[in-house]
Amino acid sequence: MPAQLKKISESTIHRLSIYYRALAALEKENRTTISSKELAKRDKLTPAQVRKDLSFFGSFGTRGLGYPVVELRNRIAEIMGLNRLWNVALVGVGNIGSALAQYKEFAKQGFNIKLIFDNDLRKIGSNHKGIIVSDVRNLKSMVVSENIDIVIIAVPAASAQAVCDEVVAGGIKAILNFAPINLKVPDDVVLRNQNMCIELEHLAFALNNKNR
Amino acid sequence: MPAQLKKISESTIHRLSIYYRALAALEKENRTTISSKELAKRDKLTPAQVRKDLSFFGSFGTRGLGYPVVELRNRIAEIMGLNRLWNVALVGVGNIGSALAQYKEFAKQGFNIKLIFDNDLRKIGSNHKGIIVSDVRNLKSMVVSENIDIVIIAVPAASAQAVCDEVVAGGIKAILNFAPINLKVPDDVVLRNQNMCIELEHLAFALNNKNR
Repeated sequence: MPAQLKKISESTIHRLSIYYRALAALEKENRTTISSKELAKRDKLTPAQVRKDLSFFGSFGTRGLGYPVVELRNRIAEIMGLNRLWNVALVGVGNIGSALAQYKEFAKQGFNIKLIFDNDLRKIGSNHKGIIVSDVRNLKSMVVSENIDIVIIAVPAASAQAVCDEVVAGGIKAILNFAPINLKVPDDVVLRNQNMCIELEHLAFALNNKNR
Repeated sequence: MPAQLKKISESTIHRLSIYYRALAALEKENRTTISSKELAKRDKLTPAQVRKDLSFFGSFGTRGLGYPVVELRNRIAEIMGLNRLWNVALVGVGNIGSALAQYKEFAKQGFNIKLIFDNDLRKIGSNHKGIIVSDVRNLKSMVVSENIDIVIIAVPAASAQAVCDEVVAGGIKAILNFAPINLKVPDDVVLRNQNMCIELEHLAFALNNKNR
């Protein structure tokens, strides 16, 4: 892998996810090639931006013919780590947690929710779409024994840091946090926050600045 | 408002949302000022990036003293359109839709879920946290009569474009889509897609490229 991949920006990674999805859709339609222009148009980007993003992978695509759909999709999958299975543990089966447990796209993209935890005695031991809800007291030991790669935190803000500390102590290096709080993690742990309000705020900004 | 605000990038808007949240937390702690350094540290950004982002608002903050917390928060709220109430309609109360209907942070940020729609006769007429679920057949007329600003689409992929066309016909200019499909909208409509997999893909990328 080229060394400059380490320096790939957050927004590029985000766009790679989008290209990946577009290419998967094109593959289903049996398309063999796609131009940077068409790929750009689908997601309201510029062809130059698309070409720049894809140039990270070295030379790809033929002028006039475009990019080979399957090959490019596989290449992005390889870079992004989407050509393998990731073991995911979900902590908290409240409103958001329950919706996530049933979100079918995760499995399709290789994110296998293997464990579910809660601290509610009425939920522990119950069957959640084929997964028995475990006691959160066993969180640290089970993320180790079940080889969990990624932990999704979907507990209330007040308990999120404690959950986070437990999984970090269990050696977890990647956390997706849905709790509306800034979690503290060591430098070698990657933390992403999913605040459901942020996309609405983008829309509010756009509406607010439409007629100026 | 300065003209260059129109050109503010997507990533800047995203960071403004994050600063806004940090400032709100600081206000609760009764902090009056914050330095670009501290603001940067909270979210793993560089102080230079923070200063650049905030320079969009004209001159702000005093060297050595930092930014005034309340004033800066209000200024960001004004730009982002967060100092007012937005009327939101939610279409689809499946797993994700139900979780969204109960997501308390929306109301805190001024996003008022005023209407909920579904096409399931068992759900229509039922009470969802104080809101009666309406028949999706009345979607177009009700987004108009109830002055809806933003529509959240949380229906299966197969029905998402039809729902989207209805609300666009009803004059809606801002849509947040949770369905795993690329929706087509006219140029004057702002569409944001919330794919729950994207954050997990960022984590997969980070894990995949950790030891290279």
